[in-house]
Amino acid sequence: MTSPRVVDVGRWEPNASGRLRQAAMELYLERGFEQTTVAEIAERAGLTARTFFRHFADKREVLFAGSVSLQEHLVGALDGAPDSASPMEAIWAALGAAATALGQHRDYSRQRQSVIAANVELRERELIKMASLAVALADGLRRRGVADPTASLAAEAGVAVLRVAFERWVSEPDDQDLSHVMRESLEELKTLTADG
Amino acid sequence: MTSPRVVDVGRWEPNASGRLRQAAMELYLERGFEQTTVAEIAERAGLTARTFFRHFADKREVLFAGSVSLQEHLVGALDGAPDSASPMEAIWAALGAAATALGQHRDYSRQRQSVIAANVELRERELIKMASLAVALADGLRRRGVADPTASLAAEAGVAVLRVAFERWVSEPDDQDLSHVMRESLEELKTLTADG
Repeated sequence: MTSPRVVDVGRWEPNASGRLRQAAMELYLERGFEQTTVAEIAERAGLTARTFFRHFADKREVLFAGSVSLQEHLVGALDGAPDSASPMEAIWAALGAAATALGQHRDYSRQRQSVIAANVELRERELIKMASLAVALADGLRRRGVADPTASLAAEAGVAVLRVAFERWVSEPDDQDLSHVMRESLEELKTLTADG
Repeated sequence: MTSPRVVDVGRWEPNASGRLRQAAMELYLERGFEQTTVAEIAERAGLTARTFFRHFADKREVLFAGSVSLQEHLVGALDGAPDSASPMEAIWAALGAAATALGQHRDYSRQRQSVIAANVELRERELIKMASLAVALADGLRRRGVADPTASLAAEAGVAVLRVAFERWVSEPDDQDLSHVMRESLEELKTLTADG
């Protein structure tokens, strides 16, 4: 009996990107982001550097590759909010999608946050990612007919809530629901601005 | 009659940093930030490259040297707000100081904004500067006894208002008062979050 198909096991890499991501995170936590090389990540994952570069542009992108799809997911949720939703309700639909997506990966989120917090370049990259998300959400609101400055302000407020709630969620020891922490932060923002 | 003091005119540079800043802005607008060299900026200002480097670390810092003192000015205004001020009222004291400081230099602000908007690296640097301001304002609120997440959220909301209002102010043709545009943006944020 022969296999119906010849598999080149030298090139066939089940879930290579997941293995690379896990290997990279282990090394970043063990010895620091700066001290880790692509060759070491590939070796830890049992793969070659060439395979690494088929999945990621560089060792930084291992940490940020998910950001593009997360942003698309959030914008999709905003686009899918009912026409009757207010600007902040539409933003809230996006934040709810973020809470669901990120909330499933608390350990990874915590590890990623601690690696990013330890490196200036990574912190700056994360800031730029959040700013890019705010721009994308503001564009989404404009597509819904929301004018500026409302669209920009609502998007900036949403990203502020996301960022503050996310940081609380990863740093607090108890296992709170991210969506709940976001809702609390949004309520806090309401109270704050009402007192301004 | 002899001068009471010998002045080495080769080294005495009245307002060199102001002349360098103006020369740099002219060149950035004429030929673009990337296409301008430090040697050209110094030449346009009638100074040497060596003098340039006594004032600025590089050609990018000509655009950002004012950010540190602006941030100190805003934090000072926040620290000076009355003890009875709510977190957003304290943030508003800082924003008011920003409006006064920036509002006096509308032409420079407009020119600077158009140079920054045209270059990815400068846009990223500006984002980092705004994030650093949010961190400094949140620290200022914590010194006033404001706990997190309130301190972070109020600071982020303040910086969002500052950014959105500033962009409106530099892009609108009519000569509005920056402080007025900021107040409108803050009121808009209030309305928005109340409807969330």
